Amino acid sequence: MTQAKVRLYVSQDLAAGQTLALGADQARYLVAVMRLGVGARIALFNGRDGEWLAELTEAGKRGAAARCVAQTAPLAMPPDLWLLFAPIKKARTDFIVEKAAEMGARRIVPVQTDYTNSERIRQDRLQAHAVEAAEQCGGTFVPEVTGLEKLVRLLDDWPEGRKLMFCDETRVGEAVGLADAAPGPWAILIGPEGGFSPPERARLEAAPFAHVVSLGPRILRADTAAVAAMTLWQMALGDWR
Amino acid sequence: MTQAKVRLYVSQDLAAGQTLALGADQARYLVAVMRLGVGARIALFNGRDGEWLAELTEAGKRGAAARCVAQTAPLAMPPDLWLLFAPIKKARTDFIVEKAAEMGARRIVPVQTDYTNSERIRQDRLQAHAVEAAEQCGGTFVPEVTGLEKLVRLLDDWPEGRKLMFCDETRVGEAVGLADAAPGPWAILIGPEGGFSPPERARLEAAPFAHVVSLGPRILRADTAAVAAMTLWQMALGDWR
Repeated sequence: MTQAKVRLYVSQDLAAGQTLALGADQARYLVAVMRLGVGARIALFNGRDGEWLAELTEAGKRGAAARCVAQTAPLAMPPDLWLLFAPIKKARTDFIVEKAAEMGARRIVPVQTDYTNSERIRQDRLQAHAVEAAEQCGGTFVPEVTGLEKLVRLLDDWPEGRKLMFCDETRVGEAVGLADAAPGPWAILIGPEGGFSPPERARLEAAPFAHVVSLGPRILRADTAAVAAMTLWQMALGDWR
Repeated sequence: MTQAKVRLYVSQDLAAGQTLALGADQARYLVAVMRLGVGARIALFNGRDGEWLAELTEAGKRGAAARCVAQTAPLAMPPDLWLLFAPIKKARTDFIVEKAAEMGARRIVPVQTDYTNSERIRQDRLQAHAVEAAEQCGGTFVPEVTGLEKLVRLLDDWPEGRKLMFCDETRVGEAVGLADAAPGPWAILIGPEGGFSPPERARLEAAPFAHVVSLGPRILRADTAAVAAMTLWQMALGDWR
């Protein structure tokens, strides 16, 4: 990371000497909030080209531009981990997306289950939360937030070779973990607060790619379970090893 | 746990045949929100006597009473783990307290550090969050939230025999963990988002009771770090083993 006080996500390519226009919201933030002017140094990343130190070449309240000076960090891809979760109340859903970005999920998949209340999500808003989390936390990668997918359909079309860590709240306190699990592409599934329906549970228990994991003797809320499960996975199989 | 849909924390003793008065807020919740009447069954716990199935013997909007029928779960004490954290923005502080209760901390200690902004906390409000988390999550124990304590004073009067897991954000990605740590009384310290001051850091590094731990290669927000650190500790030394 650079010592720049501002880190912004941009969509454009980043390369030495490249000049790029910043959006109106970013310009307002840089000029009106952070009081930066032409020549100020900021950090930029786009999820592909690592982190770059850039210098403001224009700084107006309606528009700004920056020129890439030097790469300050290479792209650091998180392991190939997806987080699947059933959207809950708005604040906790936002939280789960933020935490998944911090904890190093590569893809975030809201799933619709039989007991999920929400029929739709604001994918753009959730994606913006993932971007903000990466900006705040020094990440150079931003996980993609997909649209809402039906759990049963996902399980039917499950990608070959990907394993699924299924946090089963009915097995609280049992000693089931990742001790015998192998690295590779994985997904973590956090169920809805009302649990899985009997057909979903049967489907999950029969899936050859699924590993049941218990998250300790206390019942955790979905957002807590998401962070705890990602910690457990990163320690056993991911980049916390 | 009972199948009762309502779980309430009370301060009184719980024992077979014991009748107890419920507060006005609880009565309003039971009668006006949950539409319960005399004879309805609820679950009660007080942090000392486990969980009890109780029957409403009075159910008015201003007052209610319940009689203990049978104990449905013994007291499940979490391991002897304290969570020390520097209070941050209100929503994230509330969140850390809620998560500490879910994850099984026995005591929650807000600490004032050189770079902590807040001079005071609302101890009663934070304690209420811990109670609510226990009510929601089936816990029979409620961690105590202490008043704000100065970190340096805490370290000076550190209790003999208690170890301290110090999550050092400057050692992101290093392989420092709990592999060689022994069980027993512990505390986890989550620093403020601005980091520790040089004197605090020197004090922590010199403390014979402190173990440095790294929480992976990405920088985590304090609330994420709290959940991740408690997961790591519970798996290595606590009741997730």
